Amino acid sequence: MRVALLNTGTELLLGDVQNTHLAFIAGEILPLGLRIDEQRTVPDGAAIREALAELFSRTEIVFVTGGLGPTTDDITREVAAELLGLKLEQNAELLTWLQHRHKTRGFKWTARIARQANVPTGAQILPNENGSASGLYFRANINAQSSSPHLFLLPGPPRELQPMFRKSVMSILRPMVKDPTALDRRIYKIACLGESIIEEAIGEKVLAIEGIELGYCARLGEVDVRIIGEADGIRRADAIIRDDLGLSIFSTTDETLEEVLVRLLAERKKTIAVAESCTGGLLAHRLTNVPGASEVFVAGYVAYANAVKIDMLKVDRKLIETHGAVSEPVARVMAEGARQCARSTYALATTGVAGPGGGSPDKPVGTAYVALASPDEDPIARKLLFPTDRETFKQLTAQAAFELLRRKLIQ
Amino acid sequence: MRVALLNTGTELLLGDVQNTHLAFIAGEILPLGLRIDEQRTVPDGAAIREALAELFSRTEIVFVTGGLGPTTDDITREVAAELLGLKLEQNAELLTWLQHRHKTRGFKWTARIARQANVPTGAQILPNENGSASGLYFRANINAQSSSPHLFLLPGPPRELQPMFRKSVMSILRPMVKDPTALDRRIYKIACLGESIIEEAIGEKVLAIEGIELGYCARLGEVDVRIIGEADGIRRADAIIRDDLGLSIFSTTDETLEEVLVRLLAERKKTIAVAESCTGGLLAHRLTNVPGASEVFVAGYVAYANAVKIDMLKVDRKLIETHGAVSEPVARVMAEGARQCARSTYALATTGVAGPGGGSPDKPVGTAYVALASPDEDPIARKLLFPTDRETFKQLTAQAAFELLRRKLIQ
Repeated sequence: MRVALLNTGTELLLGDVQNTHLAFIAGEILPLGLRIDEQRTVPDGAAIREALAELFSRTEIVFVTGGLGPTTDDITREVAAELLGLKLEQNAELLTWLQHRHKTRGFKWTARIARQANVPTGAQILPNENGSASGLYFRANINAQSSSPHLFLLPGPPRELQPMFRKSVMSILRPMVKDPTALDRRIYKIACLGESIIEEAIGEKVLAIEGIELGYCARLGEVDVRIIGEADGIRRADAIIRDDLGLSIFSTTDETLEEVLVRLLAERKKTIAVAESCTGGLLAHRLTNVPGASEVFVAGYVAYANAVKIDMLKVDRKLIETHGAVSEPVARVMAEGARQCARSTYALATTGVAGPGGGSPDKPVGTAYVALASPDEDPIARKLLFPTDRETFKQLTAQAAFELLRRKLIQ
Repeated sequence: MRVALLNTGTELLLGDVQNTHLAFIAGEILPLGLRIDEQRTVPDGAAIREALAELFSRTEIVFVTGGLGPTTDDITREVAAELLGLKLEQNAELLTWLQHRHKTRGFKWTARIARQANVPTGAQILPNENGSASGLYFRANINAQSSSPHLFLLPGPPRELQPMFRKSVMSILRPMVKDPTALDRRIYKIACLGESIIEEAIGEKVLAIEGIELGYCARLGEVDVRIIGEADGIRRADAIIRDDLGLSIFSTTDETLEEVLVRLLAERKKTIAVAESCTGGLLAHRLTNVPGASEVFVAGYVAYANAVKIDMLKVDRKLIETHGAVSEPVARVMAEGARQCARSTYALATTGVAGPGGGSPDKPVGTAYVALASPDEDPIARKLLFPTDRETFKQLTAQAAFELLRRKLIQ
């Protein structure tokens, strides 16, 4: 069944408000084997009618958000009913509920509010837990030969739409969909490997499997590989992906890299400290975003100035003078210094040239070293080059540091 | 001129990635008197062609995002060229640039990447500062009678699209639009005040000015007040806003709060250190995102475990035993401890209950203290309550700490 999402509201097109409905509804309906085939945003007014008419000709399910309020902007109810040749009738129960709701909240009643009690003939009312605009579900005959799509009118504000969707809309959708669990979906998250490299490894083989859709989503220092299809093809694709990408996969759920690290450390009853120069606190910030971080994260040393590297982490001044603060020896000593000071099992260190200034022919902007200190071996280090803007450089370096630790933990 | 935005990418329809393009582009084009009349999201594949064909019949400017990468998913270039009857030719300069880019970054070259050097006949190439996919601008004749809309193909990732839009796209758009400076636009950024409070202070007065559009955009711990209109009304609105909100305004450009702090500190030749518990490195991370931070930022102490507060910052164990780690006395001592250890002019400290666990009736989840140590007075502290999720709590606490320092610096 083809599904469309129509979001109405001029505030969405002015960029005042972020549109979260697409992500939310997409997530809710996927377990039913349904996907949103098209999403549109239109302003308040006549554009709603035009968009609805267009979508009717090619979808079976249409979700419309917004335009159910009491103001003159709010015409979704009227437009949809008119398009389907349905009359709007005032629902007595709904009117009473509205009046009561306004009274208990001390809101002033205006005649216009009564429009929210208008219901197209035969429509099902979807209760709103968090606002005054009830949702509506209906369908009708467009003409003698065909019936309209299933039409769901939903309130604009997410905190009103979301409970309504989960309770009322899902219970209407479920019987409509045959084999609701027909489609399976897998995700494989990989750090520090480029999209093209991954595609080269698995692309052709996975695409050769019939009925399997393959997609990539790249973020800074990470790529998600996504497959969707029926159980049999998914099993085969899964085998190929695990076989070719193996240990590079850090998660097959929506866990972030830092969540994986905190979990691995907690499972092993190990602790971590970080000594950061060029990443400036990002490693610590990401780790402490994870609930339960206090079980494994001991301390972060953001040793931005060289004097602080010497003071805080006991880095030998002569080492900095000989090799420079951005060097492998200094990275290693920072890591071991943090490990000792914090008395943690492991420690990560970063040092680099974040830019835009500070580069040299030897060590251009984007040069970074990440190091890992462990109880069972000398500190190891990696040299990296990310000649990009400051914030991207920090994220990529953080990813590399985290990946260094993850590989150690899963050995 | 009618404008449409077509966002392509199955990951957008699956809800994997949030679509920020609408808000960004809407904000950029508004000073030109242009507004987005319709926005659509379609999956990778055939749907792009269908959507483009539909939009062509009713808009003059179409922005298309996504589908310019090197993988088999990426077909925007091909589809758009085909729709306009244009040939794709490999651009030698672009190919050389791509090869060089991959080489300097140590990326492996695959034959497929060369597709990103294909350019429709007559198209203008829009350089990408942050990625390999160049943007394209072109128009052509759809048929003997009419020419196509102005078509802009832009990369999907926001950090690639945004600089390209600001530099290349805007310089192409400006001559296309008559009276481009008819509208003036101002922005006022305010930290740590709620939208309703601000609306109550200035809303009615500003809306009373004819021809002035007033909008609010709320983020975590910040509100932007935006006004758009002709010069005369803008002047009057500006006077009202500055009069009522005064020192609460931390910027009237797109400077972040941390950029303002780094600038204020640098101007005064002062330095800062931070001692973080519940914010876990976020203060340091945000400050070090700012180019030039090394002039003013000395060190960050992420004293997550209590033992570390004692070791790193010389907090008296008895103080923690008496008042608890999350308390005003401990916050103040952390701040002064960091100031002394780092030998900085100022220091900020945070301590709190980030949740979801760790709360008590006395100090529920969301309790936080921020403190500021200065050379000319005893450390001052503020108590806060942000009973929300962990990441939101960290950002709100960071904002409060930054605002505490800003108010001190502008005294």
